[in-house]
Amino acid sequence: MIKILVDCFGGDHCPEAPVNGALAALRVNPDLQLLLTGDETLLKKELEGKEYDAARLEIIHAPEVIGCDEKPTDVVRLKRNSSMMKAIILLRDRDDIAAMVSTGSTGALVTGALVRLGRIPGVIRPAFCPILPTMNGGIVGICDSGANVEVTSAHLRQFAIMASLYLENVYGIKKPRTALLNVGKEAEKGDDLRRETYKLLQETESLHFVGNMESRDLLSGNYDVVVADGFSGNVLVKATEGTALELLKKIKKDIYSRTLYKMGALLMSRMFKEEKAFMNYQNYGGSVLLGTSKVVVKGHGSSKAVAVEKCIEQAYKMEVSRLSGKIETEIAKYEHYDV
Amino acid sequence: MIKILVDCFGGDHCPEAPVNGALAALRVNPDLQLLLTGDETLLKKELEGKEYDAARLEIIHAPEVIGCDEKPTDVVRLKRNSSMMKAIILLRDRDDIAAMVSTGSTGALVTGALVRLGRIPGVIRPAFCPILPTMNGGIVGICDSGANVEVTSAHLRQFAIMASLYLENVYGIKKPRTALLNVGKEAEKGDDLRRETYKLLQETESLHFVGNMESRDLLSGNYDVVVADGFSGNVLVKATEGTALELLKKIKKDIYSRTLYKMGALLMSRMFKEEKAFMNYQNYGGSVLLGTSKVVVKGHGSSKAVAVEKCIEQAYKMEVSRLSGKIETEIAKYEHYDV
Repeated sequence: MIKILVDCFGGDHCPEAPVNGALAALRVNPDLQLLLTGDETLLKKELEGKEYDAARLEIIHAPEVIGCDEKPTDVVRLKRNSSMMKAIILLRDRDDIAAMVSTGSTGALVTGALVRLGRIPGVIRPAFCPILPTMNGGIVGICDSGANVEVTSAHLRQFAIMASLYLENVYGIKKPRTALLNVGKEAEKGDDLRRETYKLLQETESLHFVGNMESRDLLSGNYDVVVADGFSGNVLVKATEGTALELLKKIKKDIYSRTLYKMGALLMSRMFKEEKAFMNYQNYGGSVLLGTSKVVVKGHGSSKAVAVEKCIEQAYKMEVSRLSGKIETEIAKYEHYDV
Repeated sequence: MIKILVDCFGGDHCPEAPVNGALAALRVNPDLQLLLTGDETLLKKELEGKEYDAARLEIIHAPEVIGCDEKPTDVVRLKRNSSMMKAIILLRDRDDIAAMVSTGSTGALVTGALVRLGRIPGVIRPAFCPILPTMNGGIVGICDSGANVEVTSAHLRQFAIMASLYLENVYGIKKPRTALLNVGKEAEKGDDLRRETYKLLQETESLHFVGNMESRDLLSGNYDVVVADGFSGNVLVKATEGTALELLKKIKKDIYSRTLYKMGALLMSRMFKEEKAFMNYQNYGGSVLLGTSKVVVKGHGSSKAVAVEKCIEQAYKMEVSRLSGKIETEIAKYEHYDV
């Protein structure tokens, strides 16, 4: 039995999205057991009248609420009975629990995970690795996308190793083609950090390093893993998601501007639905935090049930594939490197 | 008479795109005079049989060719008779020439401009400022987009001032809403550089600073100028352009997958044409280099005639509006700041 915690109070659609996502995940995976954290009364109300295997669902009462403008460090220190902190502490204290999923505040989750959970031995800095769909039907992982705004080449190499193992073990991509985000493809492009990292990635035998990638090629399907500092990785992911959503919004608006277009769009309605689903991050799960001692998956604040279900699935696969142990083994090979 | 140099050998469609772009610009602006640099024989051949005001078009013979893999510093030192370097040197030496336009190598152009032209007094680092269309029909300028991968807050403030004056003087946007590219909207987000810059921009009276911007909001229409270090600015611009182009390509491919979609698309053909034109950077001119002592406009390597014409128009407007002088005056106000 794999046990996973689900923080049910944090995102925009709480608690219905986490609860319904949890029930969907339970139906699909018979060896999954879920622990929902949050206000017990509200959770029971949400579960009322729904069919599920009660033996595999537990409610952990955690009534405190985290405010939007609370500092992450204050949350970690003072809100031990919030649905998120309760989950983090349980994850730390109970050996039988493998992972947690949250759609709450990113800052509080990262800080809480770092302070309370700690890291996989050898990992300097845990990093986020969200997944985006590519234009040829594949996926690409970007690591880091915001957990570390200031990094060294040693950090970036670890991000590359962790993300590469993640794509291989959770998504079945053999020898993921791993690239470094840079301002040009040539080895000498970018700042000192990029040039140093380029060399380091080239020397790392565990990696299938394919060189620098320019941001315009993220969706090309030519890359499986893109390594970046948390600042530019964040810019990359949000610019890509933002542009796709804005463009689809514009096309929709333009369609409604003329009857002729509306008629055309009617014929193409299935296609537009597919494009929308294709670019909808809800269908690709959350951004996993790689490198913490136990598995943490962060869903978008706007996650609906389907997105939460995907997050649980990601956490499940990370645990089943014993990703943490593999990260530890691989990272240890390069521990001689001066960090 | 405004005199502008056009480097006719550098981009993918040379010399036809620069030559035809030049002729189009001449037709529109009666007080414009153009000097085309490049191989005289090839230029004359390209001009053959075309109608234009010969009194306002001069050919400057510059037969040397710059190779794809040549180092920018070598180009500047050794290729004085290439179409690009000849233009830069003429721009420096002749007081009557106001500006130059090139679709050649970015690295060589930046290096050549810095070494041979120098900067506007007070400017620490020139920076690129490309323009993108926003979803509500406006535009947004991003500065820097790649000339400086390592910067300080003093550089970023100057980028903000220069770009703000550019949007105001060349595009008529009053008090441009200026934002700092960051990983979150709150003032304390990002690294030390971002927090320091945030404060500095707030204190700068010449600016209409509106706070941090996340990359996903670039096309929202809520911002006129976005300030960034050259690394993340480059990631931002290329990710936005790349995603839009990839998505349109995908939609096109999907349309051809079914007869029903093809029929629908037929009814919407004008709309799709407009979307394509909307996202086509060719229609928004080049990336101007702000802060050099004379005006330099860099067009995309893939520029066609219409894009080159827009670049010439940008250079023309920068000169007519006396942008350089205004930048000098405004920058001088903050010279007491310890750079």
